[in-house]
Amino acid sequence: VGAWGEARLIESLRRCLGSASLPSPRGIGDDCAVLTGPAPTLVTVDPLVFGRHFDATLSPSDAGAKLLKRNLSDIAAMGGRPSSAVVALVLSPDVRVSWLERFYRGLGAAARRYHVKIVGGDIAQASLAGPNARIAGFFSASLTLLGTAPSGCVVTRDGARIGDRLYVTGELGRSFQTGHHFRFEPRLREGEWLARRPEVRALMDVSDGIGKDVRALVPPRALPALWEERLPRRAPATTIQALSDGEDYELLFAVSAAAETDRFEKAFRAAFPRVRLSQIGEMVAKGKMPKGALPEQALQGYEHFR
Amino acid sequence: VGAWGEARLIESLRRCLGSASLPSPRGIGDDCAVLTGPAPTLVTVDPLVFGRHFDATLSPSDAGAKLLKRNLSDIAAMGGRPSSAVVALVLSPDVRVSWLERFYRGLGAAARRYHVKIVGGDIAQASLAGPNARIAGFFSASLTLLGTAPSGCVVTRDGARIGDRLYVTGELGRSFQTGHHFRFEPRLREGEWLARRPEVRALMDVSDGIGKDVRALVPPRALPALWEERLPRRAPATTIQALSDGEDYELLFAVSAAAETDRFEKAFRAAFPRVRLSQIGEMVAKGKMPKGALPEQALQGYEHFR
Repeated sequence: VGAWGEARLIESLRRCLGSASLPSPRGIGDDCAVLTGPAPTLVTVDPLVFGRHFDATLSPSDAGAKLLKRNLSDIAAMGGRPSSAVVALVLSPDVRVSWLERFYRGLGAAARRYHVKIVGGDIAQASLAGPNARIAGFFSASLTLLGTAPSGCVVTRDGARIGDRLYVTGELGRSFQTGHHFRFEPRLREGEWLARRPEVRALMDVSDGIGKDVRALVPPRALPALWEERLPRRAPATTIQALSDGEDYELLFAVSAAAETDRFEKAFRAAFPRVRLSQIGEMVAKGKMPKGALPEQALQGYEHFR
Repeated sequence: VGAWGEARLIESLRRCLGSASLPSPRGIGDDCAVLTGPAPTLVTVDPLVFGRHFDATLSPSDAGAKLLKRNLSDIAAMGGRPSSAVVALVLSPDVRVSWLERFYRGLGAAARRYHVKIVGGDIAQASLAGPNARIAGFFSASLTLLGTAPSGCVVTRDGARIGDRLYVTGELGRSFQTGHHFRFEPRLREGEWLARRPEVRALMDVSDGIGKDVRALVPPRALPALWEERLPRRAPATTIQALSDGEDYELLFAVSAAAETDRFEKAFRAAFPRVRLSQIGEMVAKGKMPKGALPEQALQGYEHFR
């Protein structure tokens, strides 16, 4: 899979599932899937792999908290409220029990803080192909998080239209260098608030870098026009870092051009006085990219398997 | 973790979660967790690791189907009906796209057959600790399966009492040698039927060998008295194999001693004429083990991380 991009791979796997896959948001393609039923249920899954999403510089309890918070960010990105989670561990036998217990204490503390119940899980031993395939130093945890939509409706990625203003919360870039990648607060309250605002048409979280993630909000025959100087950077992040580093866990959303953006911004700031809010650009028709906006080629982010 | 038994490890991790963990069946400890809400929701997670749960002798599409069926067996073990699933993949970049596509085709075909929608997932790259930690030939998939309880109630593991008769469906042992480990039919219809019978007091699926799994049904101050000659074996399985091989994916359940077992057995056989049903023993008070029953030490199964 190393030679394929992530988007192509996911699209191919979706096709392989045939009618066992539903169109987004009831299936693959958004921050969470929305299960219809008596009340809409949100479901999302995100893994944490040692050596990839964290390393030995991170305490096990911070790693455990990060596993949950990554998933909380996906629930926030639909305007949801988290409820229950299950955890699947795959690890090599040399992983120390004391390390694993500290990981679970961190997970448990974060779960209590965000009112999530860890209701089940499974532990399996890691293994490699081949006759002498002993494996050591392997740890991966996948957490599946369920949630509800307190406002009764969810905000998906696909509601943006040409002319919509693009906003982002917080700051971007240098997440790993600064520790933001595990210290961040998932934007649950902000997501729930945004989901109740009729002028918010599309919402997602920024996890692979805004340069890549913004493409998921772009409607047909449109392009995102982003202003470099308006990108909120985690100092001293460069433009490239702000666009591409990933693990920002901020909310990116589109606000209707018909809305009074001044009023919207004032309301947001009144609700969240300590959260930076930046209007970073807008959706424009293809071929109408304004002069000075970041060129399409600059919109890159973290590519898995590259 | 290699030196600890699975039960001790899980109990320790449960404690680490503190009040983020609920008592079973609302939390860790049964085949599925039961989420309370407008309707009870079942949730379970089970992984499939290359080199552990399957190897290169299994076709990728059979492996994909097995990933789902393992989880279906857990839903069956609560008397539930499956609905939606998410899949978390962790793999090394050398895994071939064509292999992964066939895995997903098998998963998709099984999902359609059992009316499950695959609604989301995530793919992460496998990684090891250390500077030269390149990893190859690694594939693990964890599937989280959601379900409902069509009878309105679920059958947990903890309802058995002293005197209850113990039953098992199908045959036991030699699952890997015979291909049963991927060809099995999850006992969904049987589980749903059993959940509606008032005389069925406890229900679980047999995945680590009945010798180990039966312990989960034993109430305080009781022991399971199993008759060796009544164990339904997948010929030519030995007693040890029938007790300990694991991956049987059959249903084990306790029927009230007050019930007319003849009538119960007749009703089961009328509903499932092609499914073998065996009364293999009963729950007895500690110290009252009947002569000729399998001794407690014989009740062993597959121990993870041993």
